[in-house]
Amino acid sequence: MNIPQSSFKRVIIIGGGFAGIALAKKLSQQEFQVVLMDKNNYHTFQPLLYQVSTGGLEPDSIAYPIRKVLQGYPHFYFRLTEVTGIDSESNTVHTTIGDLKFDYLIVATGTRTNYFGNESITQNSMAMKTIPQSLNLRSLILENFEQALLTDDLHEREALMNFVIVGGGPTGVELAGALAEIKKGILPKDYPDLDTRRAQINLVQGADRLLPAMSEIASKKAEDFLENLGVNVWKDIRVTEYDGKVATTDQDTSFETATLIWAAGVQAVTIKGLDAEKLLSVSKRLLVNEYNQVKGFEHIFAIGDVAEMVSEKYPNGHPMMAQPAIQQGRLLGENLVRLQQGKPLQPFTYRDKGSMATIGRNKAVADLPKFKFQGVFAWFVWMFVHLYFLIGFRNRLVVFINWVYNYVKFDREARLIIRPFKDNNETAR
Amino acid sequence: MNIPQSSFKRVIIIGGGFAGIALAKKLSQQEFQVVLMDKNNYHTFQPLLYQVSTGGLEPDSIAYPIRKVLQGYPHFYFRLTEVTGIDSESNTVHTTIGDLKFDYLIVATGTRTNYFGNESITQNSMAMKTIPQSLNLRSLILENFEQALLTDDLHEREALMNFVIVGGGPTGVELAGALAEIKKGILPKDYPDLDTRRAQINLVQGADRLLPAMSEIASKKAEDFLENLGVNVWKDIRVTEYDGKVATTDQDTSFETATLIWAAGVQAVTIKGLDAEKLLSVSKRLLVNEYNQVKGFEHIFAIGDVAEMVSEKYPNGHPMMAQPAIQQGRLLGENLVRLQQGKPLQPFTYRDKGSMATIGRNKAVADLPKFKFQGVFAWFVWMFVHLYFLIGFRNRLVVFINWVYNYVKFDREARLIIRPFKDNNETAR
Repeated sequence: MNIPQSSFKRVIIIGGGFAGIALAKKLSQQEFQVVLMDKNNYHTFQPLLYQVSTGGLEPDSIAYPIRKVLQGYPHFYFRLTEVTGIDSESNTVHTTIGDLKFDYLIVATGTRTNYFGNESITQNSMAMKTIPQSLNLRSLILENFEQALLTDDLHEREALMNFVIVGGGPTGVELAGALAEIKKGILPKDYPDLDTRRAQINLVQGADRLLPAMSEIASKKAEDFLENLGVNVWKDIRVTEYDGKVATTDQDTSFETATLIWAAGVQAVTIKGLDAEKLLSVSKRLLVNEYNQVKGFEHIFAIGDVAEMVSEKYPNGHPMMAQPAIQQGRLLGENLVRLQQGKPLQPFTYRDKGSMATIGRNKAVADLPKFKFQGVFAWFVWMFVHLYFLIGFRNRLVVFINWVYNYVKFDREARLIIRPFKDNNETAR
Repeated sequence: MNIPQSSFKRVIIIGGGFAGIALAKKLSQQEFQVVLMDKNNYHTFQPLLYQVSTGGLEPDSIAYPIRKVLQGYPHFYFRLTEVTGIDSESNTVHTTIGDLKFDYLIVATGTRTNYFGNESITQNSMAMKTIPQSLNLRSLILENFEQALLTDDLHEREALMNFVIVGGGPTGVELAGALAEIKKGILPKDYPDLDTRRAQINLVQGADRLLPAMSEIASKKAEDFLENLGVNVWKDIRVTEYDGKVATTDQDTSFETATLIWAAGVQAVTIKGLDAEKLLSVSKRLLVNEYNQVKGFEHIFAIGDVAEMVSEKYPNGHPMMAQPAIQQGRLLGENLVRLQQGKPLQPFTYRDKGSMATIGRNKAVADLPKFKFQGVFAWFVWMFVHLYFLIGFRNRLVVFINWVYNYVKFDREARLIIRPFKDNNETAR
C-alpha cells in the first residue's frame, strides 16, 4: 500500500465508527502518521438507522464522509479497504489493497449481527446494522404493502402485513414503535384500498422484559408505550426457525410473516490473526486491559464495541454503546502520546452518562445516572442528545428539520423504494 | 388487477413524471376512477439528478412518494408495476401484475437514454436518467479517486481521474460544471496525497455549440463559464466507441478514461401495442394531435416527453422539458372533463416560460421569452425556479438548506459510496 515513509511512528486504525473517529480526532495534531481504514468511505450514525428504515430520515444525513473528518489533519491517510488479517509478529496489516506495517495498531471494528449459527434465520431475516441493510428493510416494508394490495388471498395478505421484530433491546423497541406509528398515521392514507388495520407489529423478546440493560421502570414504561401504539409485545419467547414464511418459536406460538427483522444479538468483528481463543472473552470480544491493550500486546489496542475491558463494575465489559467507544477512543489518543513520551499510561474509567430509547412521538425512556424519567421530556432529551452526537452541522440541521416536519405533519416522506429489495434479493444483502 | 368496478369512467395514467402528476392533480376532484401506474413508488425531479451524482443533494429530497401526492383524492388508485403492453382493440393494459381495462388511457412514460444502437457505449458508459443511475455514478466517481490513490501506474491513475461527458445539453453542461467545482474545492482537501490537478473533465459535444436549444449568447456564456472552471470543452466531435478504457471519436482525438457519462440523447419510452411505425414521429415519439390524442384514437392520449405534437412553431414537437409536460397534463385534465360532458376539446398552446442551465456557483444562463441573462442573477432565478417546481415542502426545505450550506462552505457532504458500483457492476445498472 503506497503510504509514504515518515519519521513519525505509524498508527493504523481499523474502523471509522465512534471509537475510531474519536481517536483520530485526538491524534489530529500529534506527531504520528495515522492511517485510518474502513470498508466504507463514511461514518455511520447507527442509533438512527431505524429511522432510515422507516422513511423518517434519508441515509445521507446520518452518514458522514470520513475524508471530511480528516481534512486538514497533517500526516493522515484514509484507505477504503477491507482488512483481511494481521500478522502480529511482523506488525503487518493485510488488506484487499495490499499490506502495511504499523507501529501501533488499533482495532475499532465494532460488531455485526449475530445469528448464533442459525442457518434459516441468517438466510431469511433482515438485519439493520448498516445503511444498505436499512435501505433494504425500507424497500421490503414498502414492497410488502404494494404486494398486499395485489393478492386476493387473505392469508398471504396478512403475512405481508405482519412484521416480526426479534429482540427487545433499543433497536427492536425503536423500530417497533416507528412501524406502529406508520401503521397508524401513514398506511390508512397511503393505502385507502387496503385494510391496514390488519397490519401487525410483533416484538419478540427472549428475556422477561424489554430493554434489559435499562431500569425496571424504563422497561415497564417502554412496554406500556408500545402496547398503547398497538404493538404486540411477546416476552420469554425465542424465535428458533424462520423459513421466509413462518417463524417458529420455543413456545406454542408461531408467526406467519413475510418480514422477520433480527435485532436479537451482535457479535464482535474480530480480525484474522487476532482471533485466537485466548484473546477473546466468552462473548467473543477482544479482551483488553485498562489501557485498551489487547491481552499480551503492548502496541495492539482494541476500543469500542469490539473490546471487552473487564472490571469490578463491568464484569462483562462496558455496554456496547457510543459513549464507552468515544471515551475509550479519546483516552487512547492521549495514552499513545504518553507512550511515545515514555510516560505512564492512564487507566480507562467509564463515565456513565446513562442510556435512552425512544418509542414514538413524545414517548421515550431515559435512565440518567442521577434520575430516571419517561415521556415527553425524555423524548426531547433523546432528540437533543442524538443531534449533539451526530457528526456535521449539515447533518444535524437536516435531521432536525426532518424531525420537526415529521412531528408537525405526522409524516415520513422518505418512503421511497429507491432500490427494490425483492428483485435483488440475492445480491442486495 | 383488483381495482374495484365503479360507475365512473376509468382513466389509466402510465407514468408519474411531471405530466402524469399534473394530470392526476387536475382530476383529483372529478368524477373519474383514476389508476396511476409507475415502476417506481416515487416521482423523480430529474433536473436535479446531477446534484445527486455529485454529492450535493441526497436522493430522498428530489424524490416524492406518489401515494402521498394522491392522498385524499377519492377514486384514485396507485399501482407499482411495469406496463408490458396495451391492446387498443379491447382497451386493456397489460402489466407485470395483471391486466386492466380502461375507458381512457394516458401514456406519460417519458424518455430513456438513447445510445443510438451503439453496443460498446451501451455496455460501458454511465447514464443519469434515474435515481439509481445517479447514485451509481456518484459511487463510481468516488471509487475512481479511491482507486487512483492505490496505483503507481501514472497512466492508469490519470484514466481514473479523467471524466468524459458526452452531450452538451443541460445535463452534460450542469454535470461538467459540478465536477469541475468538486475538482477545485473538494478533491485537494479530501485527497491531499493525490495530485488532483491531474483530474480532467472533458465535455464532448457533437454540435458546434453547447446548449443548442438555447440562445447563442447562452451557449457562449456557458462555454466561457465552463472553461473558467477548467473544463475542456470539445465541439464538433462525436464519441463513436468506448470499450471501458478508451473513448474513440470521429476525429483524431481519443480519450483514455475510466468514466464515460452518456448524456447525448434520449428516446421516448413507447409501449408495445402503441409502437406501430405509423404512430411514431421520425424521432420515435408518439404523434399526437392538438388535444394530445394519439393518432387514430379518441380515448388514448400521450403527454409530456413521449408525445410529439407537431405545430408550425414546433415542427419537431415541443422541447422535452418539465413545462410542456406540466401544461399538457393540466389541459388534458380539463379536456377529459369536457369529453365527458360532450363539450368540444380545447387545443394545446405551449406557453414558453423559457429555459435555463446552471454551470456552477453564481454561474447560470437563462433565456426567458422577453430577455436573456447570465451570471449571478440567472443563478438565483435558476435556484428559485427549481425549488418552486420541486414537489413537497420538506423537499424544498431540505434542498434549500443543502444549497445554502454548500454555497457557504464550498462543500458537498453527500459524497458517500452507499452502494459500491464497481463490485455490483452486473446487477446495479
